[in-house]
Amino acid sequence: MTTLYDVAAIGNAIVDVIAPASDDFLAEEDLAKGGMMLIDAERAASLYSRMAAAIEASGGSAGNTVAGVASLGGRGVHIGKVGRDQLGDVFAHDMDAIGARFAGGRMADATPTGHCLINVTPDGQRTMSTFLGAAALLSPEDVDPAVIEAAKIVYLEGYLFDPEAARRAFAKAAGLARAAGRLIALTLSDAFVIDRHRGALHGFIATEVDVLFANEAEITSLYECDFDAAVEAVRGKAKIAAITRSEKGSLIVSGDAVHEIEAAPVEKVVDTTGAGDQYAAGFLFGLAQGRSLDYCGRLGSLAAAEVISHYGPRPQVSLKDLAIAAGL
Amino acid sequence: MTTLYDVAAIGNAIVDVIAPASDDFLAEEDLAKGGMMLIDAERAASLYSRMAAAIEASGGSAGNTVAGVASLGGRGVHIGKVGRDQLGDVFAHDMDAIGARFAGGRMADATPTGHCLINVTPDGQRTMSTFLGAAALLSPEDVDPAVIEAAKIVYLEGYLFDPEAARRAFAKAAGLARAAGRLIALTLSDAFVIDRHRGALHGFIATEVDVLFANEAEITSLYECDFDAAVEAVRGKAKIAAITRSEKGSLIVSGDAVHEIEAAPVEKVVDTTGAGDQYAAGFLFGLAQGRSLDYCGRLGSLAAAEVISHYGPRPQVSLKDLAIAAGL
Repeated sequence: MTTLYDVAAIGNAIVDVIAPASDDFLAEEDLAKGGMMLIDAERAASLYSRMAAAIEASGGSAGNTVAGVASLGGRGVHIGKVGRDQLGDVFAHDMDAIGARFAGGRMADATPTGHCLINVTPDGQRTMSTFLGAAALLSPEDVDPAVIEAAKIVYLEGYLFDPEAARRAFAKAAGLARAAGRLIALTLSDAFVIDRHRGALHGFIATEVDVLFANEAEITSLYECDFDAAVEAVRGKAKIAAITRSEKGSLIVSGDAVHEIEAAPVEKVVDTTGAGDQYAAGFLFGLAQGRSLDYCGRLGSLAAAEVISHYGPRPQVSLKDLAIAAGL
Repeated sequence: MTTLYDVAAIGNAIVDVIAPASDDFLAEEDLAKGGMMLIDAERAASLYSRMAAAIEASGGSAGNTVAGVASLGGRGVHIGKVGRDQLGDVFAHDMDAIGARFAGGRMADATPTGHCLINVTPDGQRTMSTFLGAAALLSPEDVDPAVIEAAKIVYLEGYLFDPEAARRAFAKAAGLARAAGRLIALTLSDAFVIDRHRGALHGFIATEVDVLFANEAEITSLYECDFDAAVEAVRGKAKIAAITRSEKGSLIVSGDAVHEIEAAPVEKVVDTTGAGDQYAAGFLFGLAQGRSLDYCGRLGSLAAAEVISHYGPRPQVSLKDLAIAAGL
């Protein structure tokens, strides 16, 4: 069967609401700087009412990764759930507009599209408060088997381990991908998600996951040990584990081999949001092209370096052109 | 009676949808580069479906001016009409969040909030296609007499001369302002608006307007003659006419006097959108403080210079701080 997509990503469909904020504001609102927390509709309305004037832009971890894949010249598709509202239109439009595709579901009722209230302090750090809304209601019916079967890699966002229906959607997608001989990739997303679902994640990784993405905080949280022990622990659990380490680059663990990948040079780090999402985009695009793990890691590093050199979690230039210029 | 506001602005409540575009795209879509055209809901959906991934941000000419007044440390209020939808929430939130106030109306039915599809070409020019939606349905009932009576200056956006109900809202606001001894300011907004309503505008300016804002294209369109003749023609019609001339600065015509105001220096012009809106903000804020026309013009030039030095039609730094630094 021919594949239409390099990557089918399943994740929270989220529109970002981005506003400047002071450190005092974070303190007053009891927001943990640099963190991501889930909030309910009431808290979202209350927090938004006190935030500064904002801009709105499509986001979501998996959505950002699909945008990166598209920027590299690949074909991506996003499976998520949006509301029957304007922010839902925005998310779906932006996905289609980048040359990817939004293949997720829409609410039948009035549940709004998920959004992430992002307060950016003067030091460039982003503090995220996410109201999941429709995103949390992704269900197995939103996963179209034809889309999964047409993708070389199915990429799952760990954030979706929280809602029960979304986890069943995961299981459905993983089963379909396995049956069709596709690769299954998972990003751990967040140390708190791991805390809540450590046992289930261990099982899922051992049985389903070909490629695991994690940063240092996530991999050490998953195995509840220090970094070196965590690298040993993951060996053999997932076929491939790509562990990102900010300015220290990344480690790719596969069987007995460990590939050390340097971080790509960045003139000035402006905003680190989306670094992991773009690393995954480069890595997965390389993998879909059948390239070496070393190449995949370097392409991931290149994509991550671009996104941290400006505000916003999606590429602002053609990653394909950047990769060509870098000889990749 | 004490006044709560420096400026009460009546205009189209609009959320901007801003995306990069090529010149070829403008040609394919039959869009006149640098222009503003009104489009209907069907055309808006169709054009949006072909536009690139976008960001959303509050806009609207009068909204931008109120944002400028707030940035100067003044108190502004916006009277417009939004839908009962997310973009309506965004417009109202952003107005309140800058320390101004949204005092307009909300649709009872499902008419969406107006939005402006802005295609930005690589040369920095913005081509605007506006779907007015709820904005066009501003009606006299949306004008709260208490708000008009509490403002030193009522500022009217010429775009609102198009919809009939909005023009009645204008007349109501002008009557209330006159009765309360407030100043009435009008911006001509657009040469096409003038073409459609030249006779009515002449009458309104002669009977109601204390301060008229226009650029060269607008003032020559209004009087259907060359620039010098237009300057003579406007003399005595409005008590004060402030005519902006891009890099040539502005002329303030008042009775027998003409004040020539230089443009404030700009290192690099990035995006000229909003220059007129911010000039009006500076001018009106100065006027509300009882300053000289010369001072008002210079404050307008300073505010315009800030906004054209970056993308987006609203100030990105405190105009109050800028004015202090410039000795104003």
